[in-house]
Amino acid sequence: MSLPFHISIVFLIFLIFRLILTVHSDNTTLHVQPGSSSFKIVLFADLHFGEDTWTDWGPRQDVNSIKVMSTVLDQEHPDFVVYLGDIVTANNIPIKNASLYWDQAISPTRDRGIPWSSVFGNHDDMYFEWPMEWFSSTGIPPLHCRVNVSRPPESEGVCSFKGTTRSELMMNELEMNKLSYSKFGPKDLWPSISNYVLKLSSANNPESVIAYMYFLDSGGGSYPEVISSAQAEWFNRTSQEINPNSRVPEIIFWHIPSQAYKEVAPRSDAHGNCIGSLFMEEVAAQEAEMGMMQLLEGRSSVKAVFVGHNHGLDWCCPYKKLWLCYARHSGYGGYGNWPRGARILEITQQPFSLKSWIRMQDGHVHSEVLLNS
Amino acid sequence: MSLPFHISIVFLIFLIFRLILTVHSDNTTLHVQPGSSSFKIVLFADLHFGEDTWTDWGPRQDVNSIKVMSTVLDQEHPDFVVYLGDIVTANNIPIKNASLYWDQAISPTRDRGIPWSSVFGNHDDMYFEWPMEWFSSTGIPPLHCRVNVSRPPESEGVCSFKGTTRSELMMNELEMNKLSYSKFGPKDLWPSISNYVLKLSSANNPESVIAYMYFLDSGGGSYPEVISSAQAEWFNRTSQEINPNSRVPEIIFWHIPSQAYKEVAPRSDAHGNCIGSLFMEEVAAQEAEMGMMQLLEGRSSVKAVFVGHNHGLDWCCPYKKLWLCYARHSGYGGYGNWPRGARILEITQQPFSLKSWIRMQDGHVHSEVLLNS
Repeated sequence: MSLPFHISIVFLIFLIFRLILTVHSDNTTLHVQPGSSSFKIVLFADLHFGEDTWTDWGPRQDVNSIKVMSTVLDQEHPDFVVYLGDIVTANNIPIKNASLYWDQAISPTRDRGIPWSSVFGNHDDMYFEWPMEWFSSTGIPPLHCRVNVSRPPESEGVCSFKGTTRSELMMNELEMNKLSYSKFGPKDLWPSISNYVLKLSSANNPESVIAYMYFLDSGGGSYPEVISSAQAEWFNRTSQEINPNSRVPEIIFWHIPSQAYKEVAPRSDAHGNCIGSLFMEEVAAQEAEMGMMQLLEGRSSVKAVFVGHNHGLDWCCPYKKLWLCYARHSGYGGYGNWPRGARILEITQQPFSLKSWIRMQDGHVHSEVLLNS
Repeated sequence: MSLPFHISIVFLIFLIFRLILTVHSDNTTLHVQPGSSSFKIVLFADLHFGEDTWTDWGPRQDVNSIKVMSTVLDQEHPDFVVYLGDIVTANNIPIKNASLYWDQAISPTRDRGIPWSSVFGNHDDMYFEWPMEWFSSTGIPPLHCRVNVSRPPESEGVCSFKGTTRSELMMNELEMNKLSYSKFGPKDLWPSISNYVLKLSSANNPESVIAYMYFLDSGGGSYPEVISSAQAEWFNRTSQEINPNSRVPEIIFWHIPSQAYKEVAPRSDAHGNCIGSLFMEEVAAQEAEMGMMQLLEGRSSVKAVFVGHNHGLDWCCPYKKLWLCYARHSGYGGYGNWPRGARILEITQQPFSLKSWIRMQDGHVHSEVLLNS
C-alpha cells in the first residue's frame, strides 16, 4: 500500500528539513529544532549484539533488542541517540567483521533518520573467548560465519577469531553512516578512540551554545579499563579552549563508571538524593583514576556524567557539584534479566535545565529527576 | 680471519653428511647417526623471547637466553632439539610479526645445523597486555616497532597490537627453516595447531623404528589451556594405526602439565621415586582433562611425558606405568630467577632405554634418571 501523494511530499519535506538542520558538514554541532526550546537524547546502553550466533537463542536476543529500541524511539521521538558502549559482545563473535552486528544495533535509529553518536565499552573489542565445552566431546558447533556481502565469495564461510579493533569499528561506522556524529579522537590518546566533543546550539542563533557534550572512551576489552592521564589532559585543554569561563553547561558520556560512583552508590534502594529503580549490584568501576574526575569536579559547568556497564543499576546520585548517573540496560544481550529500557535526557534552554527519566520497553516511565546542580 | 682450506672442506663435508642423514623430504622421520647407538635430544623450555623491548632490560634477557642455548648445545652436541613452548612472550610484543623473536630463539640451533621441532605454549599467541602505567602521566614509551626487512618501507615503525596467531607463527617457522620438523596438525584439531608425530629410526635399517615422538598443543593464550577430546581421539587413532601392538616405545611432548602432574608432585624435595632439583611451585595444570591422560595410561608403550610451563619445577616422577617430567626453564624471559638449564634425553636402541639429565648454563649436570618403565 502506498501513501497518498500529498502525505509523501509532506514527509519528504520534513525529512529534508530535518537533514538540513541536524546533519552538518563537520558533524560536530547539533541544533535544537526550530519552534522547540528543548533537545531530547535517548541513551542506549549495553545492547550486546552478536551473542551466541551458533544457537537460536543468540539471534533472538538481538531481535528483542531491536524491539526495545524501536518502542523507545517511537514513544520519545528524540533529537539524538547516544550508544553508550557494549554495543556488541566481541568476545562472542567469531566473524572477521563485528561491524555487521554494530550496524544492526544502530539500524533502528538510522532507519528513523535520527542522528547518533557512540562510545566504546569494554566488550566492543574484547578478544574472542573460546567456550570450554567446544573442547570436550561435543566439539566446535557449526558456526554461521556471516560475511560482508561486498567481500569476494571466496571469503564466504571463513571464521576469524582475531577480532575487530576499535579503529575498524569506528571507521566502519563513519564510512557507512552519514547520520553518525561519532569521531576518532586525537591520535595521541590512542589506544582509546572515541574521545570527542559535540556542541548543542540554539535553533535561531547558531552562535548561542546551549551545551557541550563530551564523549570519552573508558577503555576495557583490548586494554585496561581506564581513562588515561592523556585523555584527562585533552579534556582539560579542550574545555578551557572552547568554554574558558565555564559559561556553557557540559555533559559527559562514557561507558565504565569511574571510582567516584562507588562513593555515592546507594546500598539497596533510592535513599538520600539518589533517584532510580535498580540497585542490584556493586559498582564495577574503572581500574584506576588518572585525573579525569578531579577535572570534572573542578568545573562548575559540568552537570552530569552518564555511564552504562552495570546492567543492574539505573540510578542518578549527586556527587559534589555534579550528578553521577547510570543509563539503563537496553539490550537483551549481556547478563541480567531486569526489564529493559533507556535513559532519556531533555535539555531545555533559557534557562538551562537538564531533566532525565527512564522509558521502559513496556512504555512506562519512571525515575524522573532534575539534574540541574 | 678465514679457516685453513682443508678444515673448511672437512667441515663442509660434515655438514652435507649431517643434512643427508637428518633432513628428509617428508620431515617426519629422524635417524640415529651411523656408528652411534643413541639419539640425544635437548629440550629448551620457556625461553620467552621478546619481553619489554622498549627497555634495555628486555633485549638483554634474549641475549642471555641465546648464551644458555649455545652453552648447552656446544656441550651436549644433540641430534635434535625440542622447543617446548613459550618460545616468545606475545603478551609483551607490540609488533605485527612475533616470528621475528621466534626466529631469534631458534637461531642457536639452526646456526649449528641441528634439526628441531616446536610446540606451542600459552604465551606464544597471547594477546598484548597493555601495561597500566602507560595510561598514567608517564604515557606510552617510545616503542621500537621492529619490522620485517622484507616488507615495504611504509610499514616501518608501525606498531601492531593484534598479535600473531599460532597459524602464522607455524607458517613462518616452516617457510623459513628447512631444518624444522614442526608440523601443522590436522585441521579438525583447530584451534590447536602443533599436533604431530615424528618417527625415530635406526641408522642401518630405516624400517626399524626405535621410538615415536608425539607433539601436542596444550592450548592457552588465545584459547583455553586444554588438550581437547578431538586431540585425544587423534592420538588414539594415530597410535593404533602406526603402532597397533604398542611394540614401539612412545614419548610425549607438550607445554602445560596435565592435571595428573598434581597427583605425583613432591611437596618440597625429591622424595619417593621423584628425581629433580627444583620444587619451588605448585603445579599449574591444564584447565580440564578431556581424555588424553587415560589414553596414555592405557598404552604400555608410552614411556614419559615432558612439559614446561612451571619455571620453578624440574622433576621427573613416576605415574602409574609411565613418567611425568618437567623440562627446565631455559630462558631469561619469563618469571623466576632459578639458574637456567635444559633437560636432555638420550634414547638408546637395542635394548630401548630412555635416560635423562639436566645440563645447567654453567655446564654442570644433575638429576640423571632412567625413564625405562
